[in-house]
Amino acid sequence: MRDKLNVAVLGTGQMGSGIVRLLMRKQGVAIVGVYGRRADRAGVDVGEAIGLDEKMGVALTADLPGMLSSAKPDVVIQATCSKVEQAADEIKTAVQGGANVISIAEEMAYPSYEAPGLSEEIHTLAMENEVTVVGTGINPGFVLDLLVISLTGVCYGVESITARRINDLSPYGPSVLQTQGVGITPEAFKKGVEDGSVVGHFGFPESISMIAAALGWKIEKIEQTRDPIISNVHRETEFVNIEPGLTAGCTHTAKGYMDGKPVIHLIHPQQVHPHLEDVQTGDYIDIKGEPDISFSSGPEIPGGIGTIALAVNMIPQVVTSLPGLKTMADLPAPAAIMGDVRQLIESRKYGE
Amino acid sequence: MRDKLNVAVLGTGQMGSGIVRLLMRKQGVAIVGVYGRRADRAGVDVGEAIGLDEKMGVALTADLPGMLSSAKPDVVIQATCSKVEQAADEIKTAVQGGANVISIAEEMAYPSYEAPGLSEEIHTLAMENEVTVVGTGINPGFVLDLLVISLTGVCYGVESITARRINDLSPYGPSVLQTQGVGITPEAFKKGVEDGSVVGHFGFPESISMIAAALGWKIEKIEQTRDPIISNVHRETEFVNIEPGLTAGCTHTAKGYMDGKPVIHLIHPQQVHPHLEDVQTGDYIDIKGEPDISFSSGPEIPGGIGTIALAVNMIPQVVTSLPGLKTMADLPAPAAIMGDVRQLIESRKYGE
Repeated sequence: MRDKLNVAVLGTGQMGSGIVRLLMRKQGVAIVGVYGRRADRAGVDVGEAIGLDEKMGVALTADLPGMLSSAKPDVVIQATCSKVEQAADEIKTAVQGGANVISIAEEMAYPSYEAPGLSEEIHTLAMENEVTVVGTGINPGFVLDLLVISLTGVCYGVESITARRINDLSPYGPSVLQTQGVGITPEAFKKGVEDGSVVGHFGFPESISMIAAALGWKIEKIEQTRDPIISNVHRETEFVNIEPGLTAGCTHTAKGYMDGKPVIHLIHPQQVHPHLEDVQTGDYIDIKGEPDISFSSGPEIPGGIGTIALAVNMIPQVVTSLPGLKTMADLPAPAAIMGDVRQLIESRKYGE
Repeated sequence: MRDKLNVAVLGTGQMGSGIVRLLMRKQGVAIVGVYGRRADRAGVDVGEAIGLDEKMGVALTADLPGMLSSAKPDVVIQATCSKVEQAADEIKTAVQGGANVISIAEEMAYPSYEAPGLSEEIHTLAMENEVTVVGTGINPGFVLDLLVISLTGVCYGVESITARRINDLSPYGPSVLQTQGVGITPEAFKKGVEDGSVVGHFGFPESISMIAAALGWKIEKIEQTRDPIISNVHRETEFVNIEPGLTAGCTHTAKGYMDGKPVIHLIHPQQVHPHLEDVQTGDYIDIKGEPDISFSSGPEIPGGIGTIALAVNMIPQVVTSLPGLKTMADLPAPAAIMGDVRQLIESRKYGE
C-alpha cells in the first residue's frame, strides 16, 4: 500500500485540536504538521499544546511555508478563522505548496458570496496546482444546506424551503456567548446587533447561496433578523448567569428572495438551557414542493463534533475530486471514515 | 447558450413515462428519443404512447442503436428492468453511442454486488467513451443508503446503522402486490418466499454494499428475512381484497455483518393501508456512533415520485462527473433541477 496520507492542521483552538485528535484515530493518516498563528508557542510538542497525555513528536510551528515545504502535506485542514479574507492567505499558501485544503471558516462554505475576487484567485491557483479546496462544517456546510439540497433531489419541483436548527449553547465558552448576546439586557442586545458585537449565526448567506446554486434559483435579496430570546426563568452555565428578563440567546433568521417572494427561510434560535422553558432542540427541514418533504432530528446534530467530523471525513472526497474551488454541493457526500483512508481513496479513484 | 441537452428515455412503463413527463417540465432539455422493447408499438408518437393529450413529435422506437446514432443523446435514462444482467446490453449500447447513462434498475445502484464481471465491462466501456454511468432511485439509491451515508459524515465514528422505511403499497398495481405477497394466506406467502415468487424489496444487498464501501467497512455476510404482515382487519384496494388472517404485505429485512456482528440493519415493511392498524409510515435513520444520529420523516418519501425525480435530477451531476461506472456515493448530492439544465451544468463545470 502507498505511504500514509500526509495531513497538516492549521489552528490549535477547540476545533483545530479536536481535528488533530480525530485524525490520530484514523488509519492511514500521518499528521505531519500543525500550525498555530502565535509565534511564542512555536516548537512546543503538539501533544502538549492540545492537552494530550503524551507527546506527538510533531512541533507546533508558526512558519506555514516552511512547514509546507518540509512536511509536504497532501491535505491541509484549516481551523483558524471565520472569514474568507482572514482565510485566503493561508489557503493560497497551502495550495501553492501543493496541498488540497479543507477549511472550516464559515464563509468558505460558499466563499464567492462575500469575496468573489479572492474566490476566483483561490480557484485559479487550485487549478494551476491541481488541488481541491472546499469549505465545510456542520452549519454552514451540512445541516441547513447540503442536507436540504440532497432532500430536494427526490422532488419533481420545489416551491420553497424552510429549515430550522434549534440548539443549546450551554457547552460554549465566553466568546461564543458574547457573539450570541447571551446574559445581557434586551436593550444591550439591540445595541449589540447595531454595532456588530452581537453576531448570531455565521453563515446564512452562504447556506442560501449554496442551495440556490444547486437548484438553479436566482436569489435577488437576502434579509436577516436577529432577535433576543428573553428568559422567563433563571438559567446558568459555568460562564454566564441569567436572571429572568435578561437574554438567554439569539433567534437569528434569514430569508432568500426570488421574484419578490421568500423561497428559502432559515431559522436558527440558539440559547443556553433551552429545556428550562420546554424548548426541544433539533434540526428540521421542510420542503414545500412536489412532494412536500419533512425530515427532522431531535436533538440537533452536535455542532462542534459535527464540524470536526466533517473536516476529517471529507479527506477522501477532496483528494479524489476534480481540482478547483468547490462547495459541499460539488463533492460526493461526506461519509464517516471507518477504514484505512488510503483504501477509501483508492476505491474512490475507481472511476479515473 | 449551448443547444439544449439531448436526453433519451428507455422504457415506457409507469417509471419511464413519468420520467418523460418530468423531463418535459425542465428547461434546457430536449427529449430526442424514447425506446420501448415492444417492436409492435414502434412508430407511435410518444405523447400518445404515454397517455398525454398532445403529440410530442418523437416516435417510439424499438431500435436502440438506430435511435442513438440518429438522435445522439447526451444522457440516456433507463427504466426498463431491475437486474444488471437485464440492463447491461442497453447500457453498453448507450455508452458505445457516447451517452451518459442514469439507470433506475435496482441492482445498478451497486452493480458489482450481483454482477462484478458485467460491472467491470460497463466501467471499461464508460472510461473508453468518456461517459458516466450511475444507478439511482428512491431505494436503493437514496433513503436507505445515500442519505444514511451523508448523515454518518457528522460522526467521529459509527458502530452500527439501523434504517427503516415503512410505506404504503395501496397505490400499486397487481404485479407489485404479487411480488410483495399481498392478499394471500400465510402458508402461500411462505411457499412464495421459497419458490421466489414473493420477492419483497429489491435492493438491500446493494444498499448495504454502498454504505459499507463509503465507510470502509468489510461486510462478510448479508442475511435477509421476508415475513408476512398478517392483517387483523379488512383491507381493500382496487386490486386486492384482504380478509383478516390474509397477508397485507411483507416485512423484508437485511443485516450486513462485519466481524460476526450485524453493523447495518435495514428494515422495510410494505403493506396496503397500514393506517388501518395504526401503523405510521415514514423513513427512519438511526446511527449508533459518536454521536448517535437519529433522523426521520413522516410520512415516507413517496417511492415512485422519488425515483422519477432522482433519475431526472441527477442529469447535471452525471454530465459533469469524471467518467466511469459510479454509485450515488461517488457523485455530488442530487438536487431538484429548478433552473435551466444547461446553466446548472455550466456552473458545475466551474472546477474543470
